[in-house]
Amino acid sequence: MGSEGITPREKDYSQWYIDICTRAELADYSAVKGCMVIRPNGYAIWEKMQRVLDGMFKETGHRNAYFPLFVPKSFLSREAEHVEGFAKECAVVTHYRLKNDPDGGGVIVDPAAKLEEELIVRPTSETIIWSMYKKWIQSYRDLPLLINQWANVVRWEMRTRIFLRTTEFLWQEGHTAHATSEEAEAEALRILELYRRFAEEWLALPVLVGRKTESEKFAGAQHTYCIEAMMQDGKALQAGTSHHLGQNFAKAFDVTYQTETGAREYVYATSWGVSTRLIGALIMAHSDNHGLVLPPRVAHTQAVVVPIFKKPAELAAVAEVVDRHAEAWRKAFSFHFDDRDTVTPGFKFADWELKGVPVRIEIGPRDLAKGQAVLVRRDLERGQEGHKTFVRIEDLAEEVPRILDRIQRNLFERALAFRRSHTYDVASYDEMKARLDKDPGFYRVFFAGTAEDEARIKEETGATVRCIPFDDQGDQGTCFLTGKPTTQRVVFAKAY
Amino acid sequence: MGSEGITPREKDYSQWYIDICTRAELADYSAVKGCMVIRPNGYAIWEKMQRVLDGMFKETGHRNAYFPLFVPKSFLSREAEHVEGFAKECAVVTHYRLKNDPDGGGVIVDPAAKLEEELIVRPTSETIIWSMYKKWIQSYRDLPLLINQWANVVRWEMRTRIFLRTTEFLWQEGHTAHATSEEAEAEALRILELYRRFAEEWLALPVLVGRKTESEKFAGAQHTYCIEAMMQDGKALQAGTSHHLGQNFAKAFDVTYQTETGAREYVYATSWGVSTRLIGALIMAHSDNHGLVLPPRVAHTQAVVVPIFKKPAELAAVAEVVDRHAEAWRKAFSFHFDDRDTVTPGFKFADWELKGVPVRIEIGPRDLAKGQAVLVRRDLERGQEGHKTFVRIEDLAEEVPRILDRIQRNLFERALAFRRSHTYDVASYDEMKARLDKDPGFYRVFFAGTAEDEARIKEETGATVRCIPFDDQGDQGTCFLTGKPTTQRVVFAKAY
Repeated sequence: MGSEGITPREKDYSQWYIDICTRAELADYSAVKGCMVIRPNGYAIWEKMQRVLDGMFKETGHRNAYFPLFVPKSFLSREAEHVEGFAKECAVVTHYRLKNDPDGGGVIVDPAAKLEEELIVRPTSETIIWSMYKKWIQSYRDLPLLINQWANVVRWEMRTRIFLRTTEFLWQEGHTAHATSEEAEAEALRILELYRRFAEEWLALPVLVGRKTESEKFAGAQHTYCIEAMMQDGKALQAGTSHHLGQNFAKAFDVTYQTETGAREYVYATSWGVSTRLIGALIMAHSDNHGLVLPPRVAHTQAVVVPIFKKPAELAAVAEVVDRHAEAWRKAFSFHFDDRDTVTPGFKFADWELKGVPVRIEIGPRDLAKGQAVLVRRDLERGQEGHKTFVRIEDLAEEVPRILDRIQRNLFERALAFRRSHTYDVASYDEMKARLDKDPGFYRVFFAGTAEDEARIKEETGATVRCIPFDDQGDQGTCFLTGKPTTQRVVFAKAY
Repeated sequence: MGSEGITPREKDYSQWYIDICTRAELADYSAVKGCMVIRPNGYAIWEKMQRVLDGMFKETGHRNAYFPLFVPKSFLSREAEHVEGFAKECAVVTHYRLKNDPDGGGVIVDPAAKLEEELIVRPTSETIIWSMYKKWIQSYRDLPLLINQWANVVRWEMRTRIFLRTTEFLWQEGHTAHATSEEAEAEALRILELYRRFAEEWLALPVLVGRKTESEKFAGAQHTYCIEAMMQDGKALQAGTSHHLGQNFAKAFDVTYQTETGAREYVYATSWGVSTRLIGALIMAHSDNHGLVLPPRVAHTQAVVVPIFKKPAELAAVAEVVDRHAEAWRKAFSFHFDDRDTVTPGFKFADWELKGVPVRIEIGPRDLAKGQAVLVRRDLERGQEGHKTFVRIEDLAEEVPRILDRIQRNLFERALAFRRSHTYDVASYDEMKARLDKDPGFYRVFFAGTAEDEARIKEETGATVRCIPFDDQGDQGTCFLTGKPTTQRVVFAKAY
């Protein structure tokens, strides 16, 4: 066991992750198989994410709405590719009433209350939303229609993992309608860029930006774009997707519009989403054996003030200083004053490290005498340069934001350096096969294979094409599998 | 038909309400029976409500979390009163997989994928939450536990009405745990007061504040407190409830804590909630035959600027003025500049009245020449004093917020005057029976009857005890039904 009961990362990566989630009180297992509870510490991260993303969506003209949780079963059969490709592991509602068990065994399902048509708990909302768009879209004047929804969705997962893969999860799903294919394409790419900015600038998660292969794209999409991050075990994590859906859903739900010249055309669509799995990505990308490490920009509490004291008068002296500066500090950063007198400072240090507060401010009697505080950075190891600095108390309002910026940047750069050192150029499939288990990471290769080739590689190695990165195309090369000449570079990796 | 296709309120109140909901694009009917779609105009109101309430909850020490959508069927049998009293009209999940119909008919439910124990889509979350509190609460140090959840819930309703009663709705549900009964009681009342403030100060909805009778309280509660508003047809609408649950759920889920002296005690609980039905309350309380009337404090767009022009140059001149003042205006109020050149000003006036924007600012060439604008208040009728005023353009940033305040106050006072003029003191049950249909409203009476009496009155008149108002107790009187002496005054009314 590491500090605070956390299994060391190098010993058991999966257990390390679970330990952080549960010990830092981010989430917990519920009585319902595969469903987690997001505890206040975890939900606060989601709220931060929501606020930032929601602001970005609104700035780009999107509005929020809310569509029903339930989808009539027949809707799922409407778009052929969608039903074929989309997982059928869904929660199915068949009855609408319980009754008291006549034998006194509590409640039972009332067999008389059977639905004529079963309802599916939404695994995603394309079908129910496009059934409404048919009512709302008549003319080119109704376009573009730019709607986003914050909601819960359910996909019945056999193997679940807190935040990363749960039967129920929270997400946002954007669903837009456009007059032309070009506009839909531009929208899908606009959102992808927005996701990239959010991941990199807020979550400090460097991401590959690109397109999915035909076999990895969303069921019913023309193209699927994605951002892919690397976790500390070298595995990939899909952090967001944006789909150009073409006219598939418009045709399935017969959504046409009258053009300016009076013709009728089918509408073009996009959909895009990120989910609470981003919380998992955040944890896995930055944390260490002491617990959670949070980028300051998504930390609910950016600094914790820990008073060092033996006598009540010493605590009071620190409290007085905190009180005097509280207003100025609050304007500059969010903080919590941990004035508990039932636990030691050492206990508090470990506790706040576990919970990922980016900066610790220690103030004791000797510090007060010198008018200074000790600042400790969560992102650096003990003994590392910059881990501990002395700052004049009068300068904290100025200095703490500067240090928070430095932490934010450091986390991003550290993750980027990690990704670079775990990205491998290999010339042949055999080479990747031989290295993959020993050197988990991103395998950057020329690839001109088919969907069958991808399936075989997945079967043999567990790796899939994570993306065809936009900014890595155009060089001449030979396919690492088939030896055919190609200019397409892709990234293979094992993924969450 | 009234303006913009709205059925006049006095002709058909129900249809008037539905017309406003649909024509102002607040909500729409979905393909799933009883489930509505909340459209962007309606959802923007909910977002405003959420922001304000969420701030109030956090200021009083509550934190948000998220619990599973599904409740194991057996959980509902745990708290006897809860299962007995709570409606059993619930959505029941029995299967977890679909499969392709071998006969080619799309998808069918896979009979092999039957759940061992059925799952209920949460109608409320007491049971699932208290199953978690058992894990989280060990000691007095873990108390109070103050958690709130924003979520969707499902209650299978036979007769639905947009916003007011839908199978699925959105709400917040607070669930708190306390060491003593006194603390739980104080919490239930603190939240009730918070709800009152929110209803009156933000929604401009005057509410009665009080306690429910035993027959009207929440299943499993010790007391239920409520705020009750009056709609324009004289019916009551329960706008929020706060329950002191005693130790019932703690006992059902075996949640005890160690006291400071080392003893083990059951925990005391509260729960409380408001939902998207508040949007319905808002619409019904303030709107008129021209459409929605929104209190400025919950209006997404507080003012709309409508340029009056014939030539493009005239529009450009107004646009230039708007542009010059935009920053100052945005700081003072939210506004939209409706510069469409495809519809007439008259069309725009009706459109924004329908959508409930509190203030219209008209600017035309003659106004520009005088450096003035015409301000039109949505809450007053044409011709009423103050409906239309002239304001210097330079003064708008100062004057519009003043007028918005006046509108907010007027809406509250108008609703209060309406409630007063529709509140009747009657001395006998016969008198109420005779008047109720002719004079719908609140019937303020002395009442010392039993639950059976209440049931009989409901059966005979459709009216129920809406609440026992806190500030209307203590006088000596005789029960309007039984003639017994009593100091208890209650309010009877028909309700939504």
